[in-house]
Amino acid sequence: MIEQRRPNGSLRHLITLEDLRRDEIEALLQRAQHYARGVGQAPPGSERLRGVTIANLFTEPSTRTRVSFELAGRRLGAEVVNIEVQLSSRAKGESMLDTIYTLQALHFAVLVIRDAEPGVLAHVAAHVAAHVSVLSAGEAHLSHPTQGLLDALTVRQHKGSIAAQCIAIVGDIRHSRVARSAYQVFRALEARSLRLIGPPTLMPPAHEFPGCERFDTLEEGLAGVDVVMMLRIQKERIAQSDIPDTEEYFARYGLTAARLARAHPGAIVMHPQPMNRGVEIASDVADGPQSVIREQVSNGVAVRMAVLEAVAGNMAA
Amino acid sequence: MIEQRRPNGSLRHLITLEDLRRDEIEALLQRAQHYARGVGQAPPGSERLRGVTIANLFTEPSTRTRVSFELAGRRLGAEVVNIEVQLSSRAKGESMLDTIYTLQALHFAVLVIRDAEPGVLAHVAAHVAAHVSVLSAGEAHLSHPTQGLLDALTVRQHKGSIAAQCIAIVGDIRHSRVARSAYQVFRALEARSLRLIGPPTLMPPAHEFPGCERFDTLEEGLAGVDVVMMLRIQKERIAQSDIPDTEEYFARYGLTAARLARAHPGAIVMHPQPMNRGVEIASDVADGPQSVIREQVSNGVAVRMAVLEAVAGNMAA
Amino acid sequence: MIEQRRPNGSLRHLITLEDLRRDEIEALLQRAQHYARGVGQAPPGSERLRGVTIANLFTEPSTRTRVSFELAGRRLGAEVVNIEVQLSSRAKGESMLDTIYTLQALHFAVLVIRDAEPGVLAHVAAHVAAHVSVLSAGEAHLSHPTQGLLDALTVRQHKGSIAAQCIAIVGDIRHSRVARSAYQVFRALEARSLRLIGPPTLMPPAHEFPGCERFDTLEEGLAGVDVVMMLRIQKERIAQSDIPDTEEYFARYGLTAARLARAHPGAIVMHPQPMNRGVEIASDVADGPQSVIREQVSNGVAVRMAVLEAVAGNMAA
Repeated sequence: MIEQRRPNGSLRHLITLEDLRRDEIEALLQRAQHYARGVGQAPPGSERLRGVTIANLFTEPSTRTRVSFELAGRRLGAEVVNIEVQLSSRAKGESMLDTIYTLQALHFAVLVIRDAEPGVLAHVAAHVAAHVSVLSAGEAHLSHPTQGLLDALTVRQHKGSIAAQCIAIVGDIRHSRVARSAYQVFRALEARSLRLIGPPTLMPPAHEFPGCERFDTLEEGLAGVDVVMMLRIQKERIAQSDIPDTEEYFARYGLTAARLARAHPGAIVMHPQPMNRGVEIASDVADGPQSVIREQVSNGVAVRMAVLEAVAGNMAA
Repeated sequence: MIEQRRPNGSLRHLITLEDLRRDEIEALLQRAQHYARGVGQAPPGSERLRGVTIANLFTEPSTRTRVSFELAGRRLGAEVVNIEVQLSSRAKGESMLDTIYTLQALHFAVLVIRDAEPGVLAHVAAHVAAHVSVLSAGEAHLSHPTQGLLDALTVRQHKGSIAAQCIAIVGDIRHSRVARSAYQVFRALEARSLRLIGPPTLMPPAHEFPGCERFDTLEEGLAGVDVVMMLRIQKERIAQSDIPDTEEYFARYGLTAARLARAHPGAIVMHPQPMNRGVEIASDVADGPQSVIREQVSNGVAVRMAVLEAVAGNMAA
Repeated sequence: MIEQRRPNGSLRHLITLEDLRRDEIEALLQRAQHYARGVGQAPPGSERLRGVTIANLFTEPSTRTRVSFELAGRRLGAEVVNIEVQLSSRAKGESMLDTIYTLQALHFAVLVIRDAEPGVLAHVAAHVAAHVSVLSAGEAHLSHPTQGLLDALTVRQHKGSIAAQCIAIVGDIRHSRVARSAYQVFRALEARSLRLIGPPTLMPPAHEFPGCERFDTLEEGLAGVDVVMMLRIQKERIAQSDIPDTEEYFARYGLTAARLARAHPGAIVMHPQPMNRGVEIASDVADGPQSVIREQVSNGVAVRMAVLEAVAGNMAA
C-alpha cells in the first residue's frame, strides 16, 4: 500500500481510508463539520487555498462528484481545472506518467482522480513529486474515501457517536467502492455493529469485510439498525447474466416503508446516488422523513473542503 | 403558470416574460443599461454576487447564450459551473428531480436552464427550495426571456421609448421562442404597433400574438416600420417537407437593402443569431449601417447581469 | 503578413515569430523569466489582467497547450473561457466572422486560437476590432510562436546566450510548426549554428529554413551540438504511405544515449511533447540528466503569461 502521509505525519494523499487512524478521521470530520452548511444556507467561503491549482481528472463520467470537488476547491480560493485525459490507456502516444509529469510542471498541487482501473491512483501517487497530492474520487470497485467520510459525517450529525451505532449496508456490496470505504471508516470509528445485506450473488467474497454480520433478507438484517445505507446496482461492473431483474430485485431487496419499519424508529436512510427509484429503494422512502440523502450531498462538499485543506493547506500563497 | 415572484413581490424566477409588468421590465432594463458597455469598452465588473454559485445547464447546444450567462455571472463575482446534464430524460438512472435536489444540496443558488422540452423549466421551478432561482436560457419554441429583454434594451438605446415604435418581426415566427418573448416584452412596454411578416406556413396559429397585424410580404409589412427583427429558420423544429428551399426563401423573404428601404429611414435591423446570411438576411444588410446585431450580443450580457442580480442579489455573501 | 504591432509599436497579436525583432523577443523572454518557477515551487500569481476576458478557442485537441494558456491567464487575474467552436467550417449556419464578432461583442479582449487550417489566424486578426488581440496556440504545420519562445527561454536558462549555441532540430521537420517557430526564434536571437537532421522524406523543402545545415544521420548531425530538439512524427499530417515504420524509425533516427554522446557533454535534450517513447526518443534519454523536457512545460506557462501581459496589460481594469 502506498504511504499516504508525509514524513511529518501529515496527510499527503487520500487514496484509501484503509490505514487511516481514528484520530486522523475524526480530525477530518471535525474540520468538515466547520464547513458543513444546510441546504438553503449560504455556502462556505474561504481563501485558505489561494494560489493552489487543482486538477480534476475524471476518466469515468460523474457530474456529481466532479462538481462537488470543483466547488470544494473554488470555495477555498483555489484554481480548479477540469481536464479530460485518459490516464489508464494511451492517448495520442502520451503515456500516463508523461501526463502526470506535465501536470506537475504546470504547477498543479493536487490531482483529483477518478478511474475505473484498479491501481492507477497508487501508480500516480508513487511517481509524483513530493509537493503533489493525489486524491481519489473513486477507484474501480475498491475505494471512494471522500464518500466514506461524508457518510460518517452524516451519521454523526444525526445520530451522534459512531461507536453507538448499528449500521447496515444493503445491496450490491460486491461491486461497490462506496461499501468498502464505508466499511473502513465505520470500522475505524468502532461502530457497535456492521451488517451486510444482499443477495448471495452480490455479496463480497468471504475474506472481505471481516467482523460484519451477513444477512440475505432485509427483514432479518434491518431489525433494530440505526443506519440503513442503500447501494446502487453497479450494472457496469456486473456480467450481463448476473444482473438481477429489477422488478424481482425490488420485490426482494428494495427498501420499502414496511421493511424500514423493522429498523430502529429513529433510523436514518442513506444512498450515495444516483438512485434507481423502484429498484433498490422506494420513492416514498427516498423522499421520506428518515432520508438524509440530500444532506449527504451537502456534506460531500464540506468533506472535500476539509480533505483539500488538509493536503494542500500548507502550499497556499 | 408558475409564480415567478417571491411573497414580497421581488423577482425569483425568470421563465417567461408573459406576466411581467411594465414597471418590472423597466427596472430590469434600467439596471441592464447600468451594465451596458459598447464594443471596445472594458466589460463591467462587480462583486455583487460574491459567494453565489450559478449552474449553467444547457441541454441544447448554444455557445453564445451559455457563454453570455457565464460571463454575466462571473463579472458579478459569482461562481459559475457549466454542467452537462440531461434534464428531460433519464441518464444513469437518475431522475430529473434528483439532479435538481443534488444541485441545491451543492448550494447552487441559481439554475440557468436551456431545454428543448416544453414545461421542464416550470417543473423544476415548482420543485426547487425557496432560496433557489430558475432562469430560462431558452425553452422549446416557447420562451427566451433574456433575449426579449436584450431586444427591448437595444431598441430603447437606439430609438428611445418603445411606446413610439412600430416593430416588425419577420420570418419563422411559428417556431420561434425569440419572437414570442419579443412580442411579450414589446406588448408590455406598449409598443405603438407590432407586425408579423412571413410565409403562411411559418406564421403562428391565429390565437397567438393577439393585437399584431399580419403580412405575408416584406414589401407591405416593412412599410414605415422603426424596427425590423429578423428570425432564423428553425430547421430543427420543422418537418422536413415544410422547410422552405433557401434560395426561394431568400427571394421572397430575405431582408435585402431594397426591401429595407421600405422601412423608416432611421429603422434598425436586429437578429438573434446565428444568422443564415443569404437565407433570411443579405450580408450587406447584416453588416450595414442600420444593423445593431452586434450590440444585441453586448446587451445580452448586460441584461443577464441585471437579471442575475435581481434574483440573487440578496443571497450574496 | 498581418501587422502584429499597434501603431505605437507595442505587440498586439502573436501569430508568428517571423517578423519579431531580437529586442522584442528578448523583452518577452525577460518578462517570462520573471514568471518562471521551478517544478515544486508555488506558481506565480498576479492581478495584472484583472477585468480582462480571454477566449481559448481550440479546434484541434490539445490538453497541454489549452491548460497552459488557461493557467497563464488565470494566474494573471484574467477570466478565461474555453469555447468549443469550429472556426474554419460552418457550424449551425454561423460563419467564422460572425463568431468572431460575437466574441468581441461579449468583450473578449484576447482570442487564443489553435487551428489546423493555414490562414485562419491571420483572417481573424485582420477582422477583429482594434482592441482585440489574437494569439496563436498552434497553426497547421506553420507556426507555434509561444512554443518557440518557451524553447528559447529553456535554452537560455541552461546554456546562457543563444548566440553561443549550436542547435540541432531532429525528426519530422517538414510537418512541424514547432520546428518552424524554433527556427525563427533562434535565427532572430542569432544562434551560432542551426542544424536540421532527419530522413529526406521528412525534411522541409529546400527554400525553407535558410542558413541551416542539413544532415540525414544523427551520428553526423549531433556532433558537438549544444541543444538537441527532438520532434514528434506528425502522423495526422502525413500521407499514410509516407509514415515511417516506427521500429525502423527508432533504429535510424531515435535519440539514444549512444547517439546523444556525440553531442557536447553539456548538451540539453528538448521535446515539445507528447513524446513517442521508443519512436523518436529512448525513454532513458527522455528521463535522463540532460533532458529539460519537463522544464519546457513550466516555461510554457511563464511565456504565455508574458505574452498575455504584453498584448493585454493595458486593458486591465
